[in-house]
Amino acid sequence: MRERILNLLYQRKKEYVSGEELSQKLGISRTAIWKHIQALKGEGYKINSQKRSGYSLISVPDLLLPYEIKRDLKTKILGKKIYHFKEIGSTNDFAIKLARKGIGEGAIVVAETQAKGKGRLGREWSSPFGGLWISIILRPEILPTQAPRMTIIAALGVAKTIRKLYPLDAFIKWPNDVLIRSKVGTIRANGRMRKKRSRVFKKVCGILTEMGAEQDTVNYVVIGIGVNLNIDIKKFPMEFRKNTTSIEKELGRKIDSVEFTKRMLEEIENFYLLLKKRGFAPILKEWKKISATLGKRIKAVSGNRIIEGKAIDIDSHGALIIKTKEGKKEKILAGDVTLMRN
Amino acid sequence: MRERILNLLYQRKKEYVSGEELSQKLGISRTAIWKHIQALKGEGYKINSQKRSGYSLISVPDLLLPYEIKRDLKTKILGKKIYHFKEIGSTNDFAIKLARKGIGEGAIVVAETQAKGKGRLGREWSSPFGGLWISIILRPEILPTQAPRMTIIAALGVAKTIRKLYPLDAFIKWPNDVLIRSKVGTIRANGRMRKKRSRVFKKVCGILTEMGAEQDTVNYVVIGIGVNLNIDIKKFPMEFRKNTTSIEKELGRKIDSVEFTKRMLEEIENFYLLLKKRGFAPILKEWKKISATLGKRIKAVSGNRIIEGKAIDIDSHGALIIKTKEGKKEKILAGDVTLMRN
Repeated sequence: MRERILNLLYQRKKEYVSGEELSQKLGISRTAIWKHIQALKGEGYKINSQKRSGYSLISVPDLLLPYEIKRDLKTKILGKKIYHFKEIGSTNDFAIKLARKGIGEGAIVVAETQAKGKGRLGREWSSPFGGLWISIILRPEILPTQAPRMTIIAALGVAKTIRKLYPLDAFIKWPNDVLIRSKVGTIRANGRMRKKRSRVFKKVCGILTEMGAEQDTVNYVVIGIGVNLNIDIKKFPMEFRKNTTSIEKELGRKIDSVEFTKRMLEEIENFYLLLKKRGFAPILKEWKKISATLGKRIKAVSGNRIIEGKAIDIDSHGALIIKTKEGKKEKILAGDVTLMRN
Repeated sequence: MRERILNLLYQRKKEYVSGEELSQKLGISRTAIWKHIQALKGEGYKINSQKRSGYSLISVPDLLLPYEIKRDLKTKILGKKIYHFKEIGSTNDFAIKLARKGIGEGAIVVAETQAKGKGRLGREWSSPFGGLWISIILRPEILPTQAPRMTIIAALGVAKTIRKLYPLDAFIKWPNDVLIRSKVGTIRANGRMRKKRSRVFKKVCGILTEMGAEQDTVNYVVIGIGVNLNIDIKKFPMEFRKNTTSIEKELGRKIDSVEFTKRMLEEIENFYLLLKKRGFAPILKEWKKISATLGKRIKAVSGNRIIEGKAIDIDSHGALIIKTKEGKKEKILAGDVTLMRN
């Protein structure tokens, strides 16, 4: 109901809509309308009330609220249910709890900040206000070995969204990062520090896919996605700053976080449906086009293996194939990859 | 402390141990001793108290209590922490919660009965009183694809325990059941019903392995094991009875559930340590010796595939290899297998 009131006000933003009209259109009393309006104000919506004219929506809060994400969201699966938190421990942990309780595919958990954001292998993931910290629950009919595919469609979705919405070059670093070729690098030229288009790739998004599985069956996949949207890089711990950027920093302006979230959910869903319909081949083709890894000299640390060589391909499971100096082909399923200077 | 009091009483079962002696040995007051004794009585221990002579342990409750399982348990890893419930929804669900909170490898969850016991693929698993319903948390350094190995070592551990403790022929049915070649079958011979050693295999144990994993890393494995120990088959739903048996039924007497649990944990741990030390090959060798599947004509349903043929081998991942009538080799990772009459 609150969502419907909001949508009616939103359609005529900054105009007044009478309590009478809302009451008739929604079939509830004017007192009930008033109560919902108070609740919306409590959530941060600025709504003017005038005794004669009614209610007028002045501004929506700068938060990733379900009402805002759902409005005109063009998805069939993703975002059907949205759980929003101002602060949470970890969106992935909460999503896994929901998944284990049997919630349907497409539910998402989004938070303005995470107290205990997680990266791969239990590492810390910094999640200050201004970023998008979101987890998507899916129940794909895949084998446990095929779970990396989920990371790949998420990375593709994020990179495509950045490319479509902004004049930024987003690339995917295998297996689970999205990078931007930073335009604002300071480089040393002829002994002087100059601002210049640099070739430095900086991380703007990380993805952590977790699954619950039996032998041959994936019960659920939770794709955790963290995107640095409107974040001052100084908010990140010192050790991350050098290789990290945000959309705000790259563009030099703040962006509409809700807009980004909607487009991203749509892009990811498109790739997910494509995967279901056509299999992994067309996904892989898209992915290779914007890979920051393929063709590069890299150093990969996977478990207790360290492999240096040229990243030459991705196989149908999403594993990276590296050709070493000795001409041997090595395959890794996941790991830490450092791009080497060519 | 309660465990230590109990162990002192247990060493001199049915004799009296004075409050004075307990107090001195354990360094706590006689009032504190008295309080612990009351608590133990509340848990079902029968302990006589006499003003002059002290306390005497008469009997322990017929429950899988941590004190009882831990006493003389010869394991290094399994059972270090034991969570016991008279009733629980599902031991696997609780164990997964513990695992996600970071509890160490070897913790176990055991319940006298489960309200919502789970089988493979979300199927119902009947868990009446008298059975062993237990989940083991492990953190093996394996790939997600190798998780079936955990089911295999658990099945081996259960089958070996049954074979060592009782004169029963236990076999493993791929992938996750332990069967007993039932001695008490009624067969029709010459038109008359006669009791005779039959060749019917009946299910005595099922295993459900669930894992939490990232791309290339298993965070935890929870092995859920259900063994029909002292259960009247009539307690099972009608549709299960035909193919189900219990140790009690096969032996014609009740067994010591605590003893079974200890020996089973020891057997499973032995196979787990063997796997860590020597890899999967020696496990597979043991497994093949008591397979109820290998060499048999079977029908396997795996996902939407139905394969009929002869089960000829298990590969290094634990997948079953079936040779069809047409001579083609098919491989399945898990599924429902029916043994066909040869």
